[in-house]
Amino acid sequence: MDIPTLSDVLTAHERIKPYIHRTPVLTSSFIDTLAGAELFFKCENFQKAGAFKARGASNAVFGLDAAQAAKGVATHSSGNHGSCLSYAAGRRGIPCTVVMPRTAPRAKKDAVQGYGARVVECEPSTSSREAVFAEVVAATGAEFVHPYNDPRVIAGQATCSRELIEQVAGLDAVIAPIGGGGMVSGTCLTLSNLASNIRIYGAEPEQADDAYRSFKAGHIIADDAPSTIADGLKVPLKELTWHFVRNHVTDILTASEAEIVEAMELTWKRMKILIEPSCAVPLATILKNRDVFAGKRVGVILTGGNVDLHKLPWQ
Amino acid sequence: MDIPTLSDVLTAHERIKPYIHRTPVLTSSFIDTLAGAELFFKCENFQKAGAFKARGASNAVFGLDAAQAAKGVATHSSGNHGSCLSYAAGRRGIPCTVVMPRTAPRAKKDAVQGYGARVVECEPSTSSREAVFAEVVAATGAEFVHPYNDPRVIAGQATCSRELIEQVAGLDAVIAPIGGGGMVSGTCLTLSNLASNIRIYGAEPEQADDAYRSFKAGHIIADDAPSTIADGLKVPLKELTWHFVRNHVTDILTASEAEIVEAMELTWKRMKILIEPSCAVPLATILKNRDVFAGKRVGVILTGGNVDLHKLPWQ
Repeated sequence: MDIPTLSDVLTAHERIKPYIHRTPVLTSSFIDTLAGAELFFKCENFQKAGAFKARGASNAVFGLDAAQAAKGVATHSSGNHGSCLSYAAGRRGIPCTVVMPRTAPRAKKDAVQGYGARVVECEPSTSSREAVFAEVVAATGAEFVHPYNDPRVIAGQATCSRELIEQVAGLDAVIAPIGGGGMVSGTCLTLSNLASNIRIYGAEPEQADDAYRSFKAGHIIADDAPSTIADGLKVPLKELTWHFVRNHVTDILTASEAEIVEAMELTWKRMKILIEPSCAVPLATILKNRDVFAGKRVGVILTGGNVDLHKLPWQ
Repeated sequence: MDIPTLSDVLTAHERIKPYIHRTPVLTSSFIDTLAGAELFFKCENFQKAGAFKARGASNAVFGLDAAQAAKGVATHSSGNHGSCLSYAAGRRGIPCTVVMPRTAPRAKKDAVQGYGARVVECEPSTSSREAVFAEVVAATGAEFVHPYNDPRVIAGQATCSRELIEQVAGLDAVIAPIGGGGMVSGTCLTLSNLASNIRIYGAEPEQADDAYRSFKAGHIIADDAPSTIADGLKVPLKELTWHFVRNHVTDILTASEAEIVEAMELTWKRMKILIEPSCAVPLATILKNRDVFAGKRVGVILTGGNVDLHKLPWQ
């Protein structure tokens, strides 16, 4: 297992700086009062392509040597990783192929294609996805960039909390959503090296709580097809992200679907920013675990803002 | 006519700093490409109470002497000025009364009351509003803080563009929505003193283009009851704001209702921020007047983000 190091994070940060936003940190005194804590929201919803995944994707793409770059990159994703990899490949001017289920929403395919990648459709099953993806790689020689179980991707995501601790002094804790665990792993990588006193929390939907159960059980538990509005958080931990979660996470907290939607609407209404459902899970867990964060200075990673404005969950 | 000066702006800025956000400036390479210009969005939608009007209201409230402060403040407004004055009075801990038509949306009354002010209802007519407001002032001795035709309010709004020129170097132009003209007047006040090379534009709905027509005619034209989705921009210029508009504005540009909604949705979708319809008018006019701004560095004042999330104009 190739575990990324602090040196990889620093290299990644220099490498991707021209292609990512150093996103701002916003605060809300109203929400602070509700939470009984000081919350510092790191706005990766403002990141390129609307999600933190532009960091990891850019690090993977711009780290390729010229020969591999010429053959391009490929991934399978129906979410933000696909559009972020497409974005990064477009910036470098190399080919990118994203395998997506033919049932994925038109808007998601449009986003991937909008940044220049080719979309190849598969059936909505793991076996079809793997078969189609293997064909794509065999035909193109493209480099596979996994959405999270990849040291280059984790080193890229790790640049987010490096910025956060430069922007906000004296944090007691940082919390991020946990799906496959890429952002949480990057957070662990940075903070365990640069600010090991800061506690790290993962936040997960109750209805897709495989990371929570893995954490409590001490080994990876993967569910087949969890159902949650937080669609970015359905994927399971893998060995690399499990390594970071097991070693550096203080706890994983969960929230119900209703609590996630409520936190999402609260954030839109009071902070005037768009966040996607997955991104609302940390605030939802903070509001239901006030004792854990009481009086603390807490960094909250807002992971993404890609929502369908014509289909909002409170309507 | 008591015309505010640069000295009033500097005093206002020191006075209100503890009560307002120094709002960030955001950019979008996607929208820049559409516009053919470099746009710098000054995010007053993130301002306290969700609108730039917290600046002017705070300057008026915190500039009162103790005797007047004890009697409180009052205004008539069914929009952001009411909630912003309520916010400022709440921060100082003094009484605030806002006269609102009984037909105003429940959400707007809730916002005003949420910051602590008392709402007094009137009939939805000018005569009723004036009669009820006169009673309120007679009964309380409250200081009237006009939404825009007030030197204290204009000096407060002027602090916004002072921050903007500190945050972004080399601007060629600044554009803001124009309704009563408070924000545009504040912008004129600051820029004519500190950066007189920067051109100043007002942006107005076609369906409430009284400022445009005033500007072309050379005297104030006030319409009775214009109808537009940009409900913050229905009010007419008054003598103080007309003074600044006449002397310092380069041009006033207009946009249709459909163009306003399109610019609003574009901003939400690409920038991941909530802006209200009035706030989308500048971008709408930029996108339809590409020749005016081609290749220029343009500051765009995003004036507010108070929208009803259950009633979006594209639904």
